[in-house]
Amino acid sequence: MTMEQLEKQFNKLIEIGISLTSEHNLEKLLSTIVSEARAFTCADAGSLYIKEGDELVFMISQNDTIRNRDGADEEKKAYKKFTLPINKKNLAGYVAFTGQILNIPDAYNIPEDVEYSHKKTFDKQYNYKTVSMLMIPMTDNEGEITGVLQLINSLQNHGQAVPFKKEQEQIILSMASQAAVAINNAKLTEDIKKAHYNTIIRLAVAAEYKDEDTALHIKRMSEYSAIIAKGMGFDDKYVENIRFASPMHDIGKIGIPDRILLKPAKLDKEEWQVMMSHTTIGGDILKNPDSDIIALSRTIALSHHEKFNGKGYPFGIQGDDIPLEGRIVALADVFDALSSRRPYKEPWPLEKITNLISEERGEQFDPTVVDVFQENFEEILKVRDEFIE
Amino acid sequence: MTMEQLEKQFNKLIEIGISLTSEHNLEKLLSTIVSEARAFTCADAGSLYIKEGDELVFMISQNDTIRNRDGADEEKKAYKKFTLPINKKNLAGYVAFTGQILNIPDAYNIPEDVEYSHKKTFDKQYNYKTVSMLMIPMTDNEGEITGVLQLINSLQNHGQAVPFKKEQEQIILSMASQAAVAINNAKLTEDIKKAHYNTIIRLAVAAEYKDEDTALHIKRMSEYSAIIAKGMGFDDKYVENIRFASPMHDIGKIGIPDRILLKPAKLDKEEWQVMMSHTTIGGDILKNPDSDIIALSRTIALSHHEKFNGKGYPFGIQGDDIPLEGRIVALADVFDALSSRRPYKEPWPLEKITNLISEERGEQFDPTVVDVFQENFEEILKVRDEFIE
Repeated sequence: MTMEQLEKQFNKLIEIGISLTSEHNLEKLLSTIVSEARAFTCADAGSLYIKEGDELVFMISQNDTIRNRDGADEEKKAYKKFTLPINKKNLAGYVAFTGQILNIPDAYNIPEDVEYSHKKTFDKQYNYKTVSMLMIPMTDNEGEITGVLQLINSLQNHGQAVPFKKEQEQIILSMASQAAVAINNAKLTEDIKKAHYNTIIRLAVAAEYKDEDTALHIKRMSEYSAIIAKGMGFDDKYVENIRFASPMHDIGKIGIPDRILLKPAKLDKEEWQVMMSHTTIGGDILKNPDSDIIALSRTIALSHHEKFNGKGYPFGIQGDDIPLEGRIVALADVFDALSSRRPYKEPWPLEKITNLISEERGEQFDPTVVDVFQENFEEILKVRDEFIE
Repeated sequence: MTMEQLEKQFNKLIEIGISLTSEHNLEKLLSTIVSEARAFTCADAGSLYIKEGDELVFMISQNDTIRNRDGADEEKKAYKKFTLPINKKNLAGYVAFTGQILNIPDAYNIPEDVEYSHKKTFDKQYNYKTVSMLMIPMTDNEGEITGVLQLINSLQNHGQAVPFKKEQEQIILSMASQAAVAINNAKLTEDIKKAHYNTIIRLAVAAEYKDEDTALHIKRMSEYSAIIAKGMGFDDKYVENIRFASPMHDIGKIGIPDRILLKPAKLDKEEWQVMMSHTTIGGDILKNPDSDIIALSRTIALSHHEKFNGKGYPFGIQGDDIPLEGRIVALADVFDALSSRRPYKEPWPLEKITNLISEERGEQFDPTVVDVFQENFEEILKVRDEFIE
């Protein structure tokens, strides 16, 4: 390699490091790592294992040959999530166990005196021929092995698989190390966000302690709201904000006197006025927002009982005058209330609920929100069945 | 430069990138950036500006000569936080404005046909001689200039200041770019954490909506708790967890009936029993914790009314049987209650409070916690005066 080539390669490596570092979405990050490492080595295929406890979890895979031949769906199908033990018997396990690089020129001619072996089942099933392999440990800045990067079939000009070059080992090792730190960072960000979400759920549930609204109701309506927002085409950040903000929609119930909140009989007109004020009390509790999430939760607290036809409360505004987040949460909240068991009622049959929602399309509910809800009904039901009482 | 040297330098650069990426504490990160860049260029001094809005904020500075001659305190004193406008008139502003590197061989011989100039006030005041300067823009992965790195006096073997080398420019530029992304990440992490903290405060205040405990009380007692925890020698993570968890200590009040919570007169024995149950209700609300913060807040909710002598509630445990977090929050909570105005009472005079705390040392309060509280009293009072009604 000339000095110029070396410099170019190193600069590229630093550039990749920077781009990995700035990707905070774990899934996108993993896929970027594999594609950058493949591009660097002209590898036809590549995959990535992440260490979780004492196992390697297979996370991501790319295979140009299968995708070009059978399409992206087949490529995806070919790789299901599985785990491998960390020991010397399987290739990735060996690398994670020993911290050594494995540069295998021909997977079908592995010397017999080594402990690891290559399984041919994948090749047979997908009519693929694994030849050369480069398996690299991913070591973070504290020397911990956090995963294994696996590259397959380094291709020459005419598409012929040749062994990975010795000098590629160090470059990919360095990239894998940058990747390991980026993965740690992405996980850390996810952990902090998860803790925040859990706190919101926890405290939103606490706020309805006397009302006996359950954590599951709050989680479901938060997920439903996120599904609808996503279906409407909003970006990930906004969808996440809706997911975080919607659990606080009824926070204002904290301010409703026990004699009304806990009254076992029907509320009279005056009591109902007080009860309705949970929307504006919520707006008061969440005023002067110090984060996007609190700002959004305030909007939702104030508007989730408005109706599209203007017959809701507290302001009786209608149509697009109602903030979209309020229109989304309104439907998510009602759907969950109707489909859940409550102390005073059985869950409604699904058909009765969908009929009501269709009838209220353009009346209680925003027609677009109803449409998106129906388009994504399968996913909605999946959430319903996942967070079950 | 030989190929070997180049390779070594690039490897070092990648290593630095990794170490920057894994530092999430913004202040430590900034100081690492400056010291690594100085080490790379043998620079006697260095500092860093961060772009905030349309200004550059001076963040960090290191100066070996001043530190060795006058001590670390003088070094610190020499650099107070200040801002510079982003325009072509000052050096850092010029770099941030144009995105150009400035490599100045002699600060006292800047050609007259350029727009920027070097101010000599610092040199005069601290008896320092700035000779060579290297000013590098910090550009993140999206091409945004996020700051300026400034290196001063590249030293030769015998301590003589020489101009920065042309080839150092690209290397430092690359490092600055890695640093920019690392700074963005650290800021992002801080922002997410801040949003989480704000949500906790917001919802903890909401929980005491009827009780009219203020956001300021909750913030103060959370900060006091953190100061005590830090004073006891706990690490940053634990101190942060105490700060995040302590606001939820009274969350169980949500479960206390209005007739008792809001009773204007003294509670009778049976009512008091119910009132005391806010500790165990808190424990119930926060059970099965899904994060360290919730786990800690549960411990605090359950134990912040225990007394060191065993005369507290709900369990009447004593001494080290009371979780330390509960012992810390107990003092923080009482100190703030006594020193604040409440609808039914004036704030106590400071001396009366400190006398009471001394008297209760070993009785109501853990003696060690009292000692640490007193050792850090100045900082406690700073918080009290910062979060004022």
